[in-house]
Amino acid sequence: MTAQTTDATSTATPRDMANAVRALAMDAVERANSGHPGMPMGMADAATVLFTRFLKFDPKAPKWADRDRFVLSAGHGSMLLYALLHLTGYEDMTLDEVKNFRQLGARTAGHPEYGHASGIETTTGPLGQGIANAVGMALAERLLAARFGGSVVDHYTYVIAGDGCLMEGISQEAISLAGHLKLSKLIVLWDDNGISIDGPVSLSSSEDQRARFEAAGWATDAVDGHDAEAVAAALDRARSSDKPVMIACRTVIGYGAPKKAGTSGVHGAALGAEEIAGTREALAWPHAPFEIPADIRTAWAHAGARGAAEREAWEKRLGALDAEVQADFTRAMAGELPAGWKQALDDYIAGLIASPKTVATRKASEMALEVLVPAIPELIGGSADLTGSNNTRTKGMKPVAPGEFDGRYVFWGIREHGMAAAMNGMALHGGVIPYGGTFLVFTDYCRPAIRLSALMEQRVIYVMTHDSIGLGEDGPTHQPVEHLMSLRMMPNVAVMRPADVVETAECWAAALERTNGPSVLALSRQNLKQLRLEASAENLSAKGAYILREASAAPKAVLLATGSEVEIAVAAAEVLEAKGVPTRVVSMPCWELFAAQPADYQARVLGGDVVRIAIEAGIGFGWERWTGPKGAVIGMTGFGASAPAPELYRHFGITAEAVVDAALARV
Amino acid sequence: MTAQTTDATSTATPRDMANAVRALAMDAVERANSGHPGMPMGMADAATVLFTRFLKFDPKAPKWADRDRFVLSAGHGSMLLYALLHLTGYEDMTLDEVKNFRQLGARTAGHPEYGHASGIETTTGPLGQGIANAVGMALAERLLAARFGGSVVDHYTYVIAGDGCLMEGISQEAISLAGHLKLSKLIVLWDDNGISIDGPVSLSSSEDQRARFEAAGWATDAVDGHDAEAVAAALDRARSSDKPVMIACRTVIGYGAPKKAGTSGVHGAALGAEEIAGTREALAWPHAPFEIPADIRTAWAHAGARGAAEREAWEKRLGALDAEVQADFTRAMAGELPAGWKQALDDYIAGLIASPKTVATRKASEMALEVLVPAIPELIGGSADLTGSNNTRTKGMKPVAPGEFDGRYVFWGIREHGMAAAMNGMALHGGVIPYGGTFLVFTDYCRPAIRLSALMEQRVIYVMTHDSIGLGEDGPTHQPVEHLMSLRMMPNVAVMRPADVVETAECWAAALERTNGPSVLALSRQNLKQLRLEASAENLSAKGAYILREASAAPKAVLLATGSEVEIAVAAAEVLEAKGVPTRVVSMPCWELFAAQPADYQARVLGGDVVRIAIEAGIGFGWERWTGPKGAVIGMTGFGASAPAPELYRHFGITAEAVVDAALARV
Repeated sequence: MTAQTTDATSTATPRDMANAVRALAMDAVERANSGHPGMPMGMADAATVLFTRFLKFDPKAPKWADRDRFVLSAGHGSMLLYALLHLTGYEDMTLDEVKNFRQLGARTAGHPEYGHASGIETTTGPLGQGIANAVGMALAERLLAARFGGSVVDHYTYVIAGDGCLMEGISQEAISLAGHLKLSKLIVLWDDNGISIDGPVSLSSSEDQRARFEAAGWATDAVDGHDAEAVAAALDRARSSDKPVMIACRTVIGYGAPKKAGTSGVHGAALGAEEIAGTREALAWPHAPFEIPADIRTAWAHAGARGAAEREAWEKRLGALDAEVQADFTRAMAGELPAGWKQALDDYIAGLIASPKTVATRKASEMALEVLVPAIPELIGGSADLTGSNNTRTKGMKPVAPGEFDGRYVFWGIREHGMAAAMNGMALHGGVIPYGGTFLVFTDYCRPAIRLSALMEQRVIYVMTHDSIGLGEDGPTHQPVEHLMSLRMMPNVAVMRPADVVETAECWAAALERTNGPSVLALSRQNLKQLRLEASAENLSAKGAYILREASAAPKAVLLATGSEVEIAVAAAEVLEAKGVPTRVVSMPCWELFAAQPADYQARVLGGDVVRIAIEAGIGFGWERWTGPKGAVIGMTGFGASAPAPELYRHFGITAEAVVDAALARV
Repeated sequence: MTAQTTDATSTATPRDMANAVRALAMDAVERANSGHPGMPMGMADAATVLFTRFLKFDPKAPKWADRDRFVLSAGHGSMLLYALLHLTGYEDMTLDEVKNFRQLGARTAGHPEYGHASGIETTTGPLGQGIANAVGMALAERLLAARFGGSVVDHYTYVIAGDGCLMEGISQEAISLAGHLKLSKLIVLWDDNGISIDGPVSLSSSEDQRARFEAAGWATDAVDGHDAEAVAAALDRARSSDKPVMIACRTVIGYGAPKKAGTSGVHGAALGAEEIAGTREALAWPHAPFEIPADIRTAWAHAGARGAAEREAWEKRLGALDAEVQADFTRAMAGELPAGWKQALDDYIAGLIASPKTVATRKASEMALEVLVPAIPELIGGSADLTGSNNTRTKGMKPVAPGEFDGRYVFWGIREHGMAAAMNGMALHGGVIPYGGTFLVFTDYCRPAIRLSALMEQRVIYVMTHDSIGLGEDGPTHQPVEHLMSLRMMPNVAVMRPADVVETAECWAAALERTNGPSVLALSRQNLKQLRLEASAENLSAKGAYILREASAAPKAVLLATGSEVEIAVAAAEVLEAKGVPTRVVSMPCWELFAAQPADYQARVLGGDVVRIAIEAGIGFGWERWTGPKGAVIGMTGFGASAPAPELYRHFGITAEAVVDAALARV
């Protein structure tokens, strides 16, 4: 099983090869005078074993669908990854890029940034995210294997994680889930160096990590992380386990640095000239900075070339598949949607126009999913233990179960953060489109992962229900107030808050078509009247905002509202019209999409120098952007309360009467 | 050790008493037609044992400093707590309140809300928060015991947690920390009912919870949660452990409900008339809704009266303390600051005016702390493994270590969320004032707990450094962009971003004096010139915004800036003045405090109908609130990048030149 590293043309030992990684890492950090040399130097031996003997990859085809995925969860050790990519022959990871570590425009950012260079499978740095991404990748692999067969989908997911990753709570959610699902092709190398930034890990933790992983259903192992053969043997054992495996690699952080090795001093700062000179001596590495001797380069090139034959064999197997299956696999991996889904959704919307429905938008989301899930086989749903509330599971949608991956629905458990980060991993893996639900208020639990969906431009769809005080009795802990606006603040997140059953379907379409970023669907608990009663040739919600009801004459007031408050805007407009104030109602399901429209469309929708009143059952602050100087906002100014929803709307003054009063005071 | 429950005047058994809890819970949920009956009915027996035989409390003195703390981490089971508080005789928890469960204005909110009623020690509902709060409470208890002695500080902290709490990642951070620190007076009762909302816990988890806790350094036990004597015996054992203890209480959710018990159907919805009738029969509880037979009431009243004598004895012990120590204890528990701290800080500021300093505001924070930590003995510091970066540890500040609680500095480990939630628990416990650090970008990890600091109006001080692209090379994963504005969106959070060493000291004072909510200090990595060079009799930062540099004549432009960008505003103002544009610079360290100023002060600072330009190295969106229709914002529109900080400021156009151009285009 173990691929061989032996290269007749090179006499380089694994240690020599690892020292090349160490040298590049310490020299690059030194040149940038910024970065983390300790982790790459400590894990160089184990990573060298992984990349030269186990990891299935081909630098000439970095997007090969069945490559093993490698996640550097301890992303601060980015130079480890950059050195490995450079040495194994990824063409875009040139020596100049390594030299430009942490400089503006370089591929070699301070932490690995997905999309900056081939071979960076995910953006890491915020600790614990990588290991949870990896769980999603390993899950995607199993789901795709179940769908397309093991001849084309059969790879491992490897992770290097540090103490920081394992101390973050999200790691527990990830570990627990992976153990439960028996993701046996997931292998975590723990860089067990006993050092954190503040000093020895023992300052803050006494955890028995192996016992912890075992409690979660993992197999574990422990080796000297500097003993290449021991690491290889452990990896061999791990690959045949029927559980996910954690291998504790005991290492010395900053291995080779004569004074700083084994201390927190080597964690996050350049070594300095003197210590670097000492390291060169200790490692018997007399070469100049960034200089790699030819025989070591050759050995690394050989390791990098290892996967080509396997990739070619894989391509033959792919070619041997039924043509339709092959096309489907290729399409799904490319992230393209299958033919027909849009028509199915349009037909469904046409049915709603013909026969309007009053339903909560969470229910409307389920109704849209009843159309989409059959039409898009790679759509994988789930909820963080709120399936019946989030309405995320369609009829007959089979659950994913331990060791059984022919389902399409994930019971994520009460693990919102882990769910979000695993969905990132699924989207990054490709071939699946993940959506997952919880209450909108618990986007707070997911927030670090949502940020990474946005930064990595991943199509992850967050189905966030119970989107306001409209959830009622559960009270302020469960009522989102600042969440809509706070998510709008986050770059590249499309926050979509549909007003009715038709807009919900349109928002689902927009979210699926948004291939370069996540969408948050904010959905009501309470029933909402269908407001869209006329057929539209285009997806109006995808424009972000549009005129839902035009005024009877040139508008003096324009009401801007989202979601459940559009109903209130419509009611207020009727009163205002009756009082002789021509009033337009604009439904604004998605600010981000509206902001991307041409200026003339925006101006047309917003109207000119008129009174604009915004209505939203969330923090009003921020709406000034659209209401302008004459405007007002009917919204929340503080936390909610526990009571039936209609009482809360009255209590907090989010009513048609309040809108009318605000408008009349201004027109 | 075990207090006796026997009451000669009552024949009520523990089961009878527990059934009273069950009945109140199911009847209140039924009346509200909303709520979670399953958990209170399942845990009624164990909770009855705890409240009648172990928990040290006195309903007549609910704020007794040395009471045991009880945390219902599984907050959805709020009726369990309300029933217990009512039955044990908390005067504000009347039967009418129980009947008004989940109604507007009632003390009996959907989830327990701190401050709504006596005996609610913390707001719970967002899962996992309670157990982490409890770690903070147990830690506060030990810290205070070390300071004031075991004669006045010697209590337990008990938690009831469900599967949801234990699946949330934050629970791992909490557990790991408690085990490490050997918080042996922390006892968790796990409601091991095997049911989550989506169905059996086995749908999503296979974790061996006892093994997991043991891996974290806890002792564990397992009992039949319906066997009062077994629960009592386990609690007895737990109280003498030298580790924190988790007792797995195997229970049947919705115990007593003939059809729904043991299913997810009883978790979060009213039982319905038929099932309630069946439950009354099954429990041999023939009484009308909300009716508690006299002998059972008597038994509960007896349990509630149990603590009075112990409290009186405690008050005698308190009275026997040295008068100064006694006063200090009482003052600290009341949350009042000691005399002298303000003068010490004022003297320090006077020194800065006399001898200005150019330092990063994170360093300025450390300098302020060097004054405050000695002056305020209850100030407890810490960092989530970024001590040297957050500058949170002052000289000679002794660390808290496992079993050793005479220190004042907590190495929280890489556990931002757990730190934040534990700080909530510390503040709620009282007697200590917690502050803790991480990078501002990782407020995302803390966000659910920060929200609870705000909702519970707790004085928790978040020391968040590296507050912009100014952190440089670590790149976009570590550069906060949307965070300042997103935190400002959250009700009752004071986001303070000081511009220099003087403002940093002033913000510390404002944060300490802000007793009804959390403060987030957003601090720079990079050095900032001291801009405040004149003495001020008042704390200008505490006004939220103030005129830092007045224009040479009636201002045509007003520059609004925070933190590191105030320097840019000052530079731009000089250029504008030279070009004949009278320009005012307003430093605006805290929007929330400024918004609370009288309108005339706000108007005076902002100027009238002038051009206002905001400058902040974060998402600009939101500044429209202050800039008004003629204004502009110089800020970020997307994520940052990895490069040296000065390059990033140029790259993203946050420069004095850009400010000058924007102003000239508008005046």
